[in-house]
Amino acid sequence: MKSSILVVGSVALDSVKTPFGEVDNALGGSATYFSVAASFFSQVRIVAVVGNDFSEDYSAIFKRHNIDTKGLVQTDGKTFRWKGEYNHDLNEARTLETQLNVFKTFKPKIPASYRASEYVFLGNIDPELQLEVLRQIKHPRLVACDTMNFWINGKLEELKHTIGKVDILIINDGEARMLATEANLVQAAGKIRAMGPRILIVKRGEYGVLMFNEGSIFGAPAFPLKEVYDPTGAGDSFAGGFMGYLAQAKEITDETLRQSIIFGSVMASFNVEKFSLGGLSKLTRTDIDSRFKQFKNLTHFETL
Amino acid sequence: MKSSILVVGSVALDSVKTPFGEVDNALGGSATYFSVAASFFSQVRIVAVVGNDFSEDYSAIFKRHNIDTKGLVQTDGKTFRWKGEYNHDLNEARTLETQLNVFKTFKPKIPASYRASEYVFLGNIDPELQLEVLRQIKHPRLVACDTMNFWINGKLEELKHTIGKVDILIINDGEARMLATEANLVQAAGKIRAMGPRILIVKRGEYGVLMFNEGSIFGAPAFPLKEVYDPTGAGDSFAGGFMGYLAQAKEITDETLRQSIIFGSVMASFNVEKFSLGGLSKLTRTDIDSRFKQFKNLTHFETL
Repeated sequence: MKSSILVVGSVALDSVKTPFGEVDNALGGSATYFSVAASFFSQVRIVAVVGNDFSEDYSAIFKRHNIDTKGLVQTDGKTFRWKGEYNHDLNEARTLETQLNVFKTFKPKIPASYRASEYVFLGNIDPELQLEVLRQIKHPRLVACDTMNFWINGKLEELKHTIGKVDILIINDGEARMLATEANLVQAAGKIRAMGPRILIVKRGEYGVLMFNEGSIFGAPAFPLKEVYDPTGAGDSFAGGFMGYLAQAKEITDETLRQSIIFGSVMASFNVEKFSLGGLSKLTRTDIDSRFKQFKNLTHFETL
Repeated sequence: MKSSILVVGSVALDSVKTPFGEVDNALGGSATYFSVAASFFSQVRIVAVVGNDFSEDYSAIFKRHNIDTKGLVQTDGKTFRWKGEYNHDLNEARTLETQLNVFKTFKPKIPASYRASEYVFLGNIDPELQLEVLRQIKHPRLVACDTMNFWINGKLEELKHTIGKVDILIINDGEARMLATEANLVQAAGKIRAMGPRILIVKRGEYGVLMFNEGSIFGAPAFPLKEVYDPTGAGDSFAGGFMGYLAQAKEITDETLRQSIIFGSVMASFNVEKFSLGGLSKLTRTDIDSRFKQFKNLTHFETL
């Protein structure tokens, strides 16, 4: 039986413009990117909310990846919408419009059949809601969590409460420095790990990832790509590949965590090569394993 | 017999302030950092100019590292001086003062005993002077070159002439994008390699290094450090460790190039841990090899 991962986060309709093209109302959101990326490795259960504008075409994408949508609640109103654009360097999105819509009153309710999920990913939502999710899960084997500067600035105490209860925190480097109020990343990692998570994963966009585990640091570059079309969802695709592979590994060791980091990086690299879910949706496990091997070529050097 | 490397570049007296302290008139300059870093692996021959304010204490540092200073010319006037400071993030120096002094009229003259040097490193100086150096060397086995945005903006044609004659170009990522007028680094690398250098090494500061070789990309993170005191000279220490190790390796292969990248990263990491040459000057080969092994731990993951 496949291991199962519960993810809570946003399902959104994104309108994105980059120097290479644009899409309107494409399926997006943190829980979406996470789910699709993780679905290549594990059984995924999604908890999120959509509006009554959420058509069958969108649902079909989850179905195609065998994602359990019992926790995807449809309510009156419009689905969360985000509109943004990227400049030529593709490093940072400029938000043009955010319509929270049904997401504004989202109260995650975990279906009974999800409550024994072994692996839990708390996507980047209000830390109070993240905690609310944890209260409804019984004895998960591993909980990972994402957050952002908005919550670090606005709900620091609540956020600290949440991350005090998770095993892995996955954030970007600017957020790590902000959360720890410390410019040096190694020292910031020490401070953040002292807040609760035994593992800190720091995402550095096109520069790759660092993982701080007890007594061990792992660093991996991002996969150098000839064409990057749309970075939207890269961080969530990373988290999905990471958790997806980790959940199906038999043990959680520094070694399987390192491999999971690489699978996360693989999924993020595929994701940014196309708009919306175009980079992930048609992959096969062979494509994924082949890029994993390319990562080995990218980083390998002989010992003395 | 040790392989010998000729380096041409600046020898400077640096006054540097960071949030962690400051030094006045400390020995610095591209040729200095390069030489000291490379001296742990190979015989180094330096070509540079200093003024009559250049005391015995400074010369003693070169002597201690067995650096051949026959090409270090002393002339009337003051030594090149640079004054700069770094903010808390330590990413970019703010130049407070530059006194070119004797460097203004520097015309590198290669001593007869240097002319058969097998390995040549052209530090970041006027591309016309770099070319002048190459004209005086006979049949080097390998030439590497550094440059900066100042020359890309101001002497692009001369620079292209120089890099058309080198084997390896070592620059930072912003400079690579500027030189290629291309935001995507993989595509920029293709364009730059088409200008001449068969190998492009892109330095990314705290994020590490990428090397583009024929049919192969190698990526290494920078060594995560708990304390970074002074980033001055990191790029030149990297180049010194890289060329130093490569020159003593028996063959120039993708494998020895990768190991050389790691030795370069090792030397850069030691350099930034102290002010001026304090991080490099007291090292032993054991310290260096030990950090090389730590790099392996940092980047290793098991294949499937």
